[in-house]
Amino acid sequence: MEAYTTSFLQAVLRLREQALFPPAAIVAKQCLLDWIGVSLAARNELIVRPLLDTCAAPGAPHEATLLGLRMKTRAIDAAMINGALGHALDFDDVLRTVGHPSAPVAPVAFALGEAHGSTGAEVLLAFVLGVEAESRIGLLMAQPHYERGGHTTATIGTFGAAMAAGHLLDLDLGQLRHAFGLAGIQAAGLKGVFGTMGKPFQVGKAAQNGLLAALLAQRGFTSDEDTLASPQGFTRAHVDEVDVESSLAERDSPYVRDALFKYHAACYLTHNTIEAARTIRQASGYSVEQIDAVEICVLPRHMTTCNIEAPQTGLECKFSLRMTCAMALLGEDTSDEMLYSEAAAQRHDLIALCKRMTVTPSASGPASRVQVTLNDGRTFTATTDVSIPAEDLAAQQNRVESKFRRLASGTLSPGAIDEIIALVAALELQPDVRSLMRLLHGS
Amino acid sequence: MEAYTTSFLQAVLRLREQALFPPAAIVAKQCLLDWIGVSLAARNELIVRPLLDTCAAPGAPHEATLLGLRMKTRAIDAAMINGALGHALDFDDVLRTVGHPSAPVAPVAFALGEAHGSTGAEVLLAFVLGVEAESRIGLLMAQPHYERGGHTTATIGTFGAAMAAGHLLDLDLGQLRHAFGLAGIQAAGLKGVFGTMGKPFQVGKAAQNGLLAALLAQRGFTSDEDTLASPQGFTRAHVDEVDVESSLAERDSPYVRDALFKYHAACYLTHNTIEAARTIRQASGYSVEQIDAVEICVLPRHMTTCNIEAPQTGLECKFSLRMTCAMALLGEDTSDEMLYSEAAAQRHDLIALCKRMTVTPSASGPASRVQVTLNDGRTFTATTDVSIPAEDLAAQQNRVESKFRRLASGTLSPGAIDEIIALVAALELQPDVRSLMRLLHGS
Repeated sequence: MEAYTTSFLQAVLRLREQALFPPAAIVAKQCLLDWIGVSLAARNELIVRPLLDTCAAPGAPHEATLLGLRMKTRAIDAAMINGALGHALDFDDVLRTVGHPSAPVAPVAFALGEAHGSTGAEVLLAFVLGVEAESRIGLLMAQPHYERGGHTTATIGTFGAAMAAGHLLDLDLGQLRHAFGLAGIQAAGLKGVFGTMGKPFQVGKAAQNGLLAALLAQRGFTSDEDTLASPQGFTRAHVDEVDVESSLAERDSPYVRDALFKYHAACYLTHNTIEAARTIRQASGYSVEQIDAVEICVLPRHMTTCNIEAPQTGLECKFSLRMTCAMALLGEDTSDEMLYSEAAAQRHDLIALCKRMTVTPSASGPASRVQVTLNDGRTFTATTDVSIPAEDLAAQQNRVESKFRRLASGTLSPGAIDEIIALVAALELQPDVRSLMRLLHGS
Repeated sequence: MEAYTTSFLQAVLRLREQALFPPAAIVAKQCLLDWIGVSLAARNELIVRPLLDTCAAPGAPHEATLLGLRMKTRAIDAAMINGALGHALDFDDVLRTVGHPSAPVAPVAFALGEAHGSTGAEVLLAFVLGVEAESRIGLLMAQPHYERGGHTTATIGTFGAAMAAGHLLDLDLGQLRHAFGLAGIQAAGLKGVFGTMGKPFQVGKAAQNGLLAALLAQRGFTSDEDTLASPQGFTRAHVDEVDVESSLAERDSPYVRDALFKYHAACYLTHNTIEAARTIRQASGYSVEQIDAVEICVLPRHMTTCNIEAPQTGLECKFSLRMTCAMALLGEDTSDEMLYSEAAAQRHDLIALCKRMTVTPSASGPASRVQVTLNDGRTFTATTDVSIPAEDLAAQQNRVESKFRRLASGTLSPGAIDEIIALVAALELQPDVRSLMRLLHGS
C-alpha cells in the first residue's frame, strides 16, 4: 500500500493532468483578483512598516513585487509580506474546508511566478493546486485542529503554499513528499492571536514557509516523506482523529470552485442579513417611509457576536445586525469601509429604521431571514445563506470586480485598474505574469 | 493575579537583576565554545549549499558571520543558517529540560550581537536568559509535547531564541509578552524528521523565528500577550497538562549550569558505556591481552537502539555498545569522527575484544555499568551516568576545549583556535563581540 502522503499528493496532482475547466478556472481568477484588491488596500496598515524594516533587506535581489508598496525584494520575503497584506483587513475570500484559501497560496504563486517569469496559466494552475492541497488536508483534520487552537489558514495553508511552489518548480512526486515534510515542520499559527497583528503575520509566514519548503526540496533537502500520516508527523502531532476518506475522495471540480467572497466591510456574521436586506430592496421597490417593521431572524450565536443595538462608533456599526440591515435597506454601499463611521451611527434615518427592528434567534440552518412589513400591510421576506457557493458566476464576477475597483482605487489609476481586471480575467493567456505584476507595483 | 506569561517572564528576568555567578557563567561559556566548534565542523554537510542558495541572498546586508563559510549575510538569515549548522552533526550540548539548549539560542545571541556590536557580557547574558526561558517552558510542557511528536529543541527553542534576542534589543516586559506571542505562532518542529536534513533545519528556523518575533515586537507588533496560558495559545494547542509550579520555581543557579556535553562521535546512548570504559582504563593499567571478559550492563532501551553485535560499517560502529566499549578500553580517541570507519570495524584487536563481551539489560537508573575481568582474576567495575552535570568544571573545560580543537582544526589555524578559546573564556570582558566573530569567518 502507498504511504498516505503519496496517495494524497496523487489525488491533488490529478488536477494537473486535466485542463482547468471553466467554472473552477473562473472562480480561481476571481479569487486572485479579490486577493490582489484586499492586499493593495492594506498598504497603510500598521503591520507594513515593521515587516518592511525587518524582512525587506535593502540590497536584496529584486525578484518579486510588494503589492502597492512601490518596491521589489526577494521572492521568499515578498511571499511573506504580501501574504500578510492579503489577510490584514480580514476581507479576503473564504472556503469551508480550510478557512481563507487564497491568503497563503496566492502570494506564493505570484512571487515565484514573477521571479521565474512563469506564464499566467502556470500561476493559475499552481494556485488551484495549492487550494486543492489545503482543502483536502482541511478535510483530513481541520476541525479538531481548529478546535485545539490551530489557525488552519496558516497551518494547513503552509502545505497549500508548498504545493503551489512545488508546481512552479516542477517538483516530482518524491520531491513533493519532502516538500510536504518540510512544510509540516514549519507549519504554525494559533487562534490566540485573532484581533492582533499576529493574525496576518502568521498567514504571511505560512506563505513563506511553504515556498521555502519547496525550494529546499528542489535543492535536495530531505524530510519526513509521510508527514500527513507518520507516527511523529504533522497530522498526528496535532489531532487524534482524521478523515482519510473525505480527504482522498474524487470530485467533479476542484475545491477552489466553492470559494466565497466577502462583499461587506462589516463582521462576517452580518453578511447573511445584509444580503437578505439587499434582496428585498432590489425586489420590492418600497420607499423607506413605508417600512413599518423589520424582523431579523439569525442563528443564536450571532445574537452575542454582532448584535449591538444602538452602535455609537464606526466599529460598533460593523457589529450591529440592525445597523447593517438598515444600511442595506436604505441602499447604502455596505462594501465601503468608510460607510461605517461615527457619523453613520448618528444618522437619523438609520437610527429611526433600527428602532423599528427586532432581532430573534433561530436554531435552524446557517441562513438569516429578514422580513420587512410595510405600512400598507404588504410583507417581503428573504432568506440568504452566504455559505453556499454562487451559481451565477457572471454576477459574482461583477461583484468581485466592483469590490476590487473600490479597494484598488487608493493605490492605482483607473486605467491600471481596468488593465489588471482584464489581465486577471484572461490570466491563462498571459505569456509572462510579470506584465501583471508590474501593474501591482503602485505609484 | 498576573497572567501566567507575565509571571513566567518575571521568573526568567530575575537573572537579569543579578550578576552572573561563576559556575553558571563558566558552563555558559563552555556551551558557546562547544556550539562554535560543532557549527564550524558542519561546514561541508549536505544541508549547507541548499540553505545558502535559498536563504543567503547576494547583496543582502553583511550583518552577521556564517560560521566557517567565509561570508556574512542578514542577521535573521545568519541565525537560521548557523542554527542549522550547530545541530547538523547532532554533536551539540544537551539539557534535560528542553533537549539541545544552545542550538536555537546561541546563533541568535551571536548574530544579533554581531549586528549590533554588543559586548561579550550582553551576548553571554542573552544566551543564559534564552536557555532559562526554554528550560522553564520545557518544565511546563516538554514531556507531553515531546510524546505527541513535537521536537522541543525547535518548538520550545523558539522562545529561547526570542528571549535572547529580546534581551539584546532591550525589550520591556510588555514587548517581551508580544515577542512570546509571536514566537508561539511560529514555533514548529517534529520528531518525524529525525534522521533527515529536516532536523537541523527546524532548529535553524527556531532561531530565526525567535529573532523575528523579538524584532517585530520591538517595532510595535502585537500578539497574544499570554500565549503560554491563553485558551488558544501555544501551550494549550499542544498539550493537555502543564506543570506550572516547576516552571516558576526559584532556583539557586540558572538552568544553563546543568548543560551536558557530547564528547564521543557515536550514538548518545553509548556514551555512558564509553565513559565507564575510559574510567576503568585510566584506573587500572591493564594491557589488552590480559582482558578475559567484559560485562556491559545498560538500560533495556539501549539494547535495541545501539547494540549492533558485529558492526560492518563506520555508522554501525557508532551504534555498537561492544565496539565503542572496545575502542575506549583500547584507548582510542572516541571523540574523533574518523575513528568510526569500515577499517575499524575490521580491526582484529577490536573484534577480538568485542567477542569477549556480553551486554545485558538492567532496569535501574540511567547509568551504565562496565565490568572488566582480567586473566589473573582481578575485576574492575565502573558505573557512569552522563546525565549528571559535571562538578569539576576545570576538567569539563579541558574536555570541551579538546573537542573544540579537533572540530575547528579543519577550518581554522591553530593560532585562531587558541585565540577563540581565550576570547570565549573571557567573553564577559570583550567590549565588542565582533572581534570574536571575525575569527569565526573561516579561511
